[in-house]
Amino acid sequence: MLAPMLPSGPFSGLLTDLYELTMAAGYVQNRFEARATFELFVRSLPRRRNYLVAAGLEQALDFLENVRFSPEDISYLRALPFFHHVHSEFFDYLAQFQFTGDVWALPEGTIFFPGEPLLRVTAPIAEAQLVETSLLSILHFQTLIASKAARVTSAAAGRPVVEFGSRRAHGMEAGVFAARAAFVGGCEGTSNTFAGRRFGIPVYGTQAHSWIMAHEAEAEAFRDFLNVFPEQSTLLVDTYDVHEAIEKIIALGRKPAGVRLDSGDVLADSLWVRKRLDQAGWNDVQIFASGELDEDRIEVLLRSGARIDAFGVGTALSTSADSPYVGVIYKLVEVDTGDAVRSAAKFSQEKITYPGRKQIFRFTGEEGKFSSDVIGLDGESFPAGNPLLVPVMREGKRLEAPGKDPSATIEKARNRFLADRAHMPARILGFHAAEPPFPVRYSSQLEELHNQVRLAVAKTARSG
Amino acid sequence: MLAPMLPSGPFSGLLTDLYELTMAAGYVQNRFEARATFELFVRSLPRRRNYLVAAGLEQALDFLENVRFSPEDISYLRALPFFHHVHSEFFDYLAQFQFTGDVWALPEGTIFFPGEPLLRVTAPIAEAQLVETSLLSILHFQTLIASKAARVTSAAAGRPVVEFGSRRAHGMEAGVFAARAAFVGGCEGTSNTFAGRRFGIPVYGTQAHSWIMAHEAEAEAFRDFLNVFPEQSTLLVDTYDVHEAIEKIIALGRKPAGVRLDSGDVLADSLWVRKRLDQAGWNDVQIFASGELDEDRIEVLLRSGARIDAFGVGTALSTSADSPYVGVIYKLVEVDTGDAVRSAAKFSQEKITYPGRKQIFRFTGEEGKFSSDVIGLDGESFPAGNPLLVPVMREGKRLEAPGKDPSATIEKARNRFLADRAHMPARILGFHAAEPPFPVRYSSQLEELHNQVRLAVAKTARSG
Repeated sequence: MLAPMLPSGPFSGLLTDLYELTMAAGYVQNRFEARATFELFVRSLPRRRNYLVAAGLEQALDFLENVRFSPEDISYLRALPFFHHVHSEFFDYLAQFQFTGDVWALPEGTIFFPGEPLLRVTAPIAEAQLVETSLLSILHFQTLIASKAARVTSAAAGRPVVEFGSRRAHGMEAGVFAARAAFVGGCEGTSNTFAGRRFGIPVYGTQAHSWIMAHEAEAEAFRDFLNVFPEQSTLLVDTYDVHEAIEKIIALGRKPAGVRLDSGDVLADSLWVRKRLDQAGWNDVQIFASGELDEDRIEVLLRSGARIDAFGVGTALSTSADSPYVGVIYKLVEVDTGDAVRSAAKFSQEKITYPGRKQIFRFTGEEGKFSSDVIGLDGESFPAGNPLLVPVMREGKRLEAPGKDPSATIEKARNRFLADRAHMPARILGFHAAEPPFPVRYSSQLEELHNQVRLAVAKTARSG
Repeated sequence: MLAPMLPSGPFSGLLTDLYELTMAAGYVQNRFEARATFELFVRSLPRRRNYLVAAGLEQALDFLENVRFSPEDISYLRALPFFHHVHSEFFDYLAQFQFTGDVWALPEGTIFFPGEPLLRVTAPIAEAQLVETSLLSILHFQTLIASKAARVTSAAAGRPVVEFGSRRAHGMEAGVFAARAAFVGGCEGTSNTFAGRRFGIPVYGTQAHSWIMAHEAEAEAFRDFLNVFPEQSTLLVDTYDVHEAIEKIIALGRKPAGVRLDSGDVLADSLWVRKRLDQAGWNDVQIFASGELDEDRIEVLLRSGARIDAFGVGTALSTSADSPYVGVIYKLVEVDTGDAVRSAAKFSQEKITYPGRKQIFRFTGEEGKFSSDVIGLDGESFPAGNPLLVPVMREGKRLEAPGKDPSATIEKARNRFLADRAHMPARILGFHAAEPPFPVRYSSQLEELHNQVRLAVAKTARSG
């Protein structure tokens, strides 16, 4: 089901939770015609994370522009017992459905924090509601992986990291978008060839143990590969015995581009292999390490003096294995009925949200590092603060058409991330919870609105 | 990119790791024309798991039947520096590529254990290699989620569990297949409407906090929803105050199908709500619980006497949050060059694999429960053991065409899982590592072959 990704066709409006459809039916049938604003944000950071990296906006906008209900989608809904009492008016609405709202968002690659909207949707309430599930899913996943990649590439301290995790990603589509998000988070490339073609990400590949095992002799396996890829071969040397494999390659007298260590004592092996290759005069043969790596293991290897030139990171990266989700939510913050604008917030236990349309202002300290963020109301002004949310869609149309060259888009996102990272205080870039965390506060105007809404809500809960 | 899932179009052959393509190029260009057998299996169980549930075969076979290289795919590869020295012969091969191999597999819904092949592919070596990444990705994900769903539905002890996790799944495709796999693992249905349409899974939905917040008064929000869904409304009662919300619903005098608790002290609230609803004569109004649930929390709630009729489980289920991957691998076990058949295995540290084409035999004890498995060689016979792997594809064609009604396929898989679960010893169904684990051993013939290959490999490593 991924093949027709080029060009992107319509997305089925059924790619959503059923309750979005029941609520939309409710709004349409009850003629509840407000314009609503929802904000998509993260409630708290996953364990050991100090920041997140925005990613997936391109796919979110693609979804918003192309979501439709086919006649078959509508027939399916009509036949559900749930919809037996729903009037035709709603099904006519779906047949005509297009997203017509306005969207503001953080550009991909932006570093952000809990409470800060990653995306803000203002649209007729039924529309804004119908797109909730997909927006969350798309932005959640790429943000999760870009944020993990940021850690892994920080650990590699300038050495290239290649994303290798398609086989353990959550399906093929997840593999493709993990590759994209990992690139935004600083990876050098991916092994996912489809992602390479689709997004222009550099692709890398070596050889598998099966190549070695399929040949009767290991030396023959190396030679046969070098014959086909004389300049690009990275030879896998741990199938039987690393030392003997290196000796066989040297004996062949054919210099590979690199060798790969995928198991065993990678630290000790890297030291031995580097020395032996250098002795053979092969100082420029790269040592590539892979095999159950993550930011922690990379950091320990490098701190211990491992001689590794590049890393391949798989499962830990493509599933964000230590924290496979982010608590991302999509909350109603304002309802404009035409007669009145009402700010909305939630005050149930541990699930408090702030009302009103927001903007994020980022401040820079004297040493040129980011010093704090203020979450304020849209329209507030902080001369020293850089507003982060930008308009990306108006009346359902993107403000910037997707470029012909998707690699320009992701290159820009990756550069934005690298620039943001360079401006972050060092403690925030560590692999454990920073103390103190990056300072983020609400503006006094927003706190005031929050209090007003709290009082109004308390009254509603009692009376309504 | 999910919209054209119906009917399934061709899959791009680029949905793979680049090294599969470089190895395939190597095999084609070197005229290495062996027939290879690869087995897909799990090396070890994730933490706290005692068994896994096979799922995703339908999609894996769909992929094998429909994987192709488009002219654009091939142009992309030709232009990669990696392929500069690769002969045209390989690109001609890709243009004609179709999977022509034989496949054996565990039927979906089968409970299985580490070391047991979930799938066995025998094909020309380049073909078998090219499909590795996608087969792993497809089967990995659904097996992961079905195995998690098995735990969650075991905890619910007969009460319905609905999969609610699309928004935090790893992208939209992952959400759809998570819904499918969760159903195989015993869930009653899903909120993912597309999965409902595509696979015939029952869909469920209630209402979100935003519905309540969009209305000026909570009672009005309840009434307006009941007007549209008089028989199917499950009303969300925790937006402001659970007790007051219940009183408002009772005061409306309109009986909903159910009420949903999504936060706060679900145990205490469920007891109070049940009592109050019963007082009102509404004994048949269901109490539905959701909100950061998993198998542990469900078990504690029920053990504590919570009055909950059904559960909605989201993130924990759609990401298998406590263990978001399974160590699934695809290993070469046999090479048939026409002249000779050679069994292959791997003996590098901690990554030992067993050679030869295998079959799994399951034994049943006197009390009717499964007692042990033997992993033997294909062709071995154990009169008392039930062989689990069945042929599913011959020369690239499915032996059983996919039914017109996909709900029959998943219903069958779900029933198989439920029957397998009913035959498992109780300790294996617990939520912690069972002691002893389910007994799985290799047959003596397989152990003997393993030793032979070990000796041959030791010789190769030294000499080759």
